[in-house]
Amino acid sequence: MKLDKLIGDRFKERPSDCQIDSHALMVRGGYIKYVANGIFSNFPPLKRVTRKIEQIIREEMDAIDGQEVMFPVVMPASLWEESGRYTSIGSEMVRFTDRNRQPLVLGMTHEEAAVQLVREYANTYTKYPFMIYQIQTKFRDEARPRGGLIRVREFTMKDAYSFHTSQEDLEEYYKRAHKAYENVYRRCGCDNVISVKSDSGMMGGAVSHEFMMLTPIGEDSIAICKKCGYTANVEAAPSIIENKRDDVSEELREVNTPNCHTIEEVCGFLKTEPQKSAKAVVYQKNEDDSFVVLFIRGDLDVNETKLTNYLGCDIHPAVIDEECGIVAGFIGPVGLKVNGKHVVLFDDSLKNTNNLVCGANKIDYHFTGLDLERDCPEIEYHDFAKAIDGGICPECKERALTISRGIEVGNIFQLGTKYTKSMGMTYLDKDGKVQTPIMGCYGIGVGRLAASVCESSHDDFGPIWPMAIAPWQVHLCAVRSDDEKVKAAADKLYGDLQNAGVEVIYDDRNVRAGVMFSDADLLGVPLRVIISPRNLDEGVYELKSRDKTLDEKLAPENAVERLKELIASMIAK
Amino acid sequence: MKLDKLIGDRFKERPSDCQIDSHALMVRGGYIKYVANGIFSNFPPLKRVTRKIEQIIREEMDAIDGQEVMFPVVMPASLWEESGRYTSIGSEMVRFTDRNRQPLVLGMTHEEAAVQLVREYANTYTKYPFMIYQIQTKFRDEARPRGGLIRVREFTMKDAYSFHTSQEDLEEYYKRAHKAYENVYRRCGCDNVISVKSDSGMMGGAVSHEFMMLTPIGEDSIAICKKCGYTANVEAAPSIIENKRDDVSEELREVNTPNCHTIEEVCGFLKTEPQKSAKAVVYQKNEDDSFVVLFIRGDLDVNETKLTNYLGCDIHPAVIDEECGIVAGFIGPVGLKVNGKHVVLFDDSLKNTNNLVCGANKIDYHFTGLDLERDCPEIEYHDFAKAIDGGICPECKERALTISRGIEVGNIFQLGTKYTKSMGMTYLDKDGKVQTPIMGCYGIGVGRLAASVCESSHDDFGPIWPMAIAPWQVHLCAVRSDDEKVKAAADKLYGDLQNAGVEVIYDDRNVRAGVMFSDADLLGVPLRVIISPRNLDEGVYELKSRDKTLDEKLAPENAVERLKELIASMIAK
Repeated sequence: MKLDKLIGDRFKERPSDCQIDSHALMVRGGYIKYVANGIFSNFPPLKRVTRKIEQIIREEMDAIDGQEVMFPVVMPASLWEESGRYTSIGSEMVRFTDRNRQPLVLGMTHEEAAVQLVREYANTYTKYPFMIYQIQTKFRDEARPRGGLIRVREFTMKDAYSFHTSQEDLEEYYKRAHKAYENVYRRCGCDNVISVKSDSGMMGGAVSHEFMMLTPIGEDSIAICKKCGYTANVEAAPSIIENKRDDVSEELREVNTPNCHTIEEVCGFLKTEPQKSAKAVVYQKNEDDSFVVLFIRGDLDVNETKLTNYLGCDIHPAVIDEECGIVAGFIGPVGLKVNGKHVVLFDDSLKNTNNLVCGANKIDYHFTGLDLERDCPEIEYHDFAKAIDGGICPECKERALTISRGIEVGNIFQLGTKYTKSMGMTYLDKDGKVQTPIMGCYGIGVGRLAASVCESSHDDFGPIWPMAIAPWQVHLCAVRSDDEKVKAAADKLYGDLQNAGVEVIYDDRNVRAGVMFSDADLLGVPLRVIISPRNLDEGVYELKSRDKTLDEKLAPENAVERLKELIASMIAK
Repeated sequence: MKLDKLIGDRFKERPSDCQIDSHALMVRGGYIKYVANGIFSNFPPLKRVTRKIEQIIREEMDAIDGQEVMFPVVMPASLWEESGRYTSIGSEMVRFTDRNRQPLVLGMTHEEAAVQLVREYANTYTKYPFMIYQIQTKFRDEARPRGGLIRVREFTMKDAYSFHTSQEDLEEYYKRAHKAYENVYRRCGCDNVISVKSDSGMMGGAVSHEFMMLTPIGEDSIAICKKCGYTANVEAAPSIIENKRDDVSEELREVNTPNCHTIEEVCGFLKTEPQKSAKAVVYQKNEDDSFVVLFIRGDLDVNETKLTNYLGCDIHPAVIDEECGIVAGFIGPVGLKVNGKHVVLFDDSLKNTNNLVCGANKIDYHFTGLDLERDCPEIEYHDFAKAIDGGICPECKERALTISRGIEVGNIFQLGTKYTKSMGMTYLDKDGKVQTPIMGCYGIGVGRLAASVCESSHDDFGPIWPMAIAPWQVHLCAVRSDDEKVKAAADKLYGDLQNAGVEVIYDDRNVRAGVMFSDADLLGVPLRVIISPRNLDEGVYELKSRDKTLDEKLAPENAVERLKELIASMIAK
């Protein structure tokens, strides 16, 4: 199409409300339009990108025997009551009633709908295994949408659901799905996506993987072992700490530590290291506001996902008032008093330690010489700490962990029987016995993937789209289109490229070359052909790639062939 | 794909809750699954049909310079407040609030979103005209969903919006859109779709057309002139009545008509024709329950759309109690008393009449000899009547109108400036003057079109899908797949067809031929190839078309070529 008819504005100034580059470029390049918090309209260039991504996903899902279906966006609450998620999911799920006061929800995921679709059909083992998927709009009422399309409330997602008669069969299919996901990212031109073990959160199930595109602006932290290649979301990575006790345990001694509320202040005042301290972190359970006091080594942070999973309920940072008995800033395990229901927990990092500093549960006082085995006998330790950069790999046990940032661009789960069981889906096995099928589920957010590609492949001037998902394949610039020869040559090439099935965007506006090129940069089309009076004098067209790796002269008579050849070579297989 | 892996059940019994054939066949054939009132999931065969319809629509929209975009399903109420529709639309629009109590709506149409997307961009006349469209989920809280996919609450729709600087330009584009719509229906294999002038209802605007697929189960009535080809939705068709006055007007006389409440009863009792009576139809305005008394010739019915448009507000049938003064069953224009605010209206059909029967506003009494010009001077007449079968064509004035039933499978509107004006969208014209752009909008419901095709092209055994939108192109049946030769031949043809790019569904189940064929009928694939021991003995395959027009023997070595040739010939251009 012609650029002068393309709707949407392109401009230079970075919008002040854009924290990350992909967001700024998608606004500057006329890709997205803000409609409401976490809700965007898509301009044509983005729609072209996402349609191509969708088609790649579709082909890879079909290749692993997926069958495309369509679930509703709006579902009856009763369906979600069957699985128990109508009550267990919080305000991320939009609930409303229709004109007849029937409660409905907006789909944020479709496990329930998938089971509802097939539970009568798949009533005998011969129907298994099978996988169904859809590419459809979802709505999740995120508390904090951010980063343009990175974290939104309304989004298009491919979600797939597989059904199996055995764990082995699920695991085999899970491997195929994993491979299909790798294919999707490779074909979309992403070479920086890794799969990591993850915490399954509200999806239930045991084994799950997230596909992470590594980028500094990612909101997830990923533990990667440089030695053995182990990867995991920090939320799911075990923290391994090897402590050595001092040979001699000092006695527990109360010391005055005026105005020392934080571990840093106390350790600075007492001239010791945070590793030689026990820090208290206090939460309250959402359900009854009862306190959870967690002790952890002073240099480590709490992994709240591990804590939540251990407790089996949601928590929030504690509000400590005078009535609760807790002495904020001076909390310690010895002589701790908490009024009302509470739990006291100890992280693995405190195992086999002595001579620690900790709070004395008294304003302006700490203990030194804490030896938990001696001073708090019969306590249990669990893993509640965040894995750290330079930490020990849980797989190869080498001290080789690094922590990187990543954007989650897909995830796969071994769901087990959580949904089939709660929703009464069964089948008859070979022996005529009633069994519950086992599920897997597999998601990719289309818009987020597009934004992530932009985030990891751009320069200051715009996205650098991989050929397979670029809005167009060739950007044709007629510089000085008021020059008759230029116009004629460019018009002809435009027509020839279209006839050859090449997706071409044609800029024949009578504007300065600078304007033309900065617009082209923002559209990020991989190949650019420039026809100008100077080029024509030389009897050539100019060909450049958006990523600057290519700069050559095109013989007009070979232009179409050369471009077709390049396009084919630039589409990852 | 192989039929034994296709999810969804196929069965013979017509479900008792299906009033129309397409609904029954879509349930019986494993196309749709009921999720909630007016909400369905789509099984793979339907998804394949709708994707093909979507692609045809996309190509036709692109061919008239449409640019594909994507609007949100969930929109902020503020956007709809700008146009005034947040309050003017009733309970069909779903309203809810998010976690921050911000009011949101579910999109039932996207004029507001379209204007919001382009109003900064299209700020100068050089940007015009342009058209944007999307194919996206919509939700409309219909009071009475019915007929499977014919009238649902959640649906996928292609909606397009064009923007122009003059009415002439809109009209020119409107013609192109009209043509593109004809192309869509033709390519989808529908030869029974006509375009009719329609009432634009809540969309605003003046000229609009509905595309109607003619079928007895349609919920719309369409006036078609057999002489000149005039078509219109009955809601929008002018009613033309030519009355002749009797030479002599009798005097107005009160007659006793005991227990005669209806026109039929009165005319029967007085031995006169309904054409010689004035019937009263009473409504109340929704806004204040004030009465609307409408007099119309006794043999005609009120077109409530015309009445609503005239009044400029919504109405409902009146509840007549003792306090209002109206004498139900005996209402007449002479001496009519209504307590409180009210309007009295007269239909054109009463113009130039005399010697009519009408109510005397007194229990068990009517008048005869009514002459409105004499007895009710200074009244105005308007067109409030439904056009009738055998009526006068408003175009050619011949008495040649017929009334047919149809399903609306698309509509196009000349919107004017309703949305651009209310939402403050302007541009600078050539002379630098601020102007308001003019809009058109163009909709097609994808699922309804699929169901309508099924409704108009099926037999008792299943849909007969046109090639261009069929879920598969060839249905391959291996009858007696336990026969090694049959299995080998069928497997080979399956592979060859797939390699040739033919969409084939392959039934190699070891089931009776009857079961196989009834499943094939339900899937409605246009071409069926049968390989059986008997055929192989003859050295041929059997080829039949689903519509029974074709029954031939295929030489195995030419099978793929012959099928490809047939498929190409069966796809409407």
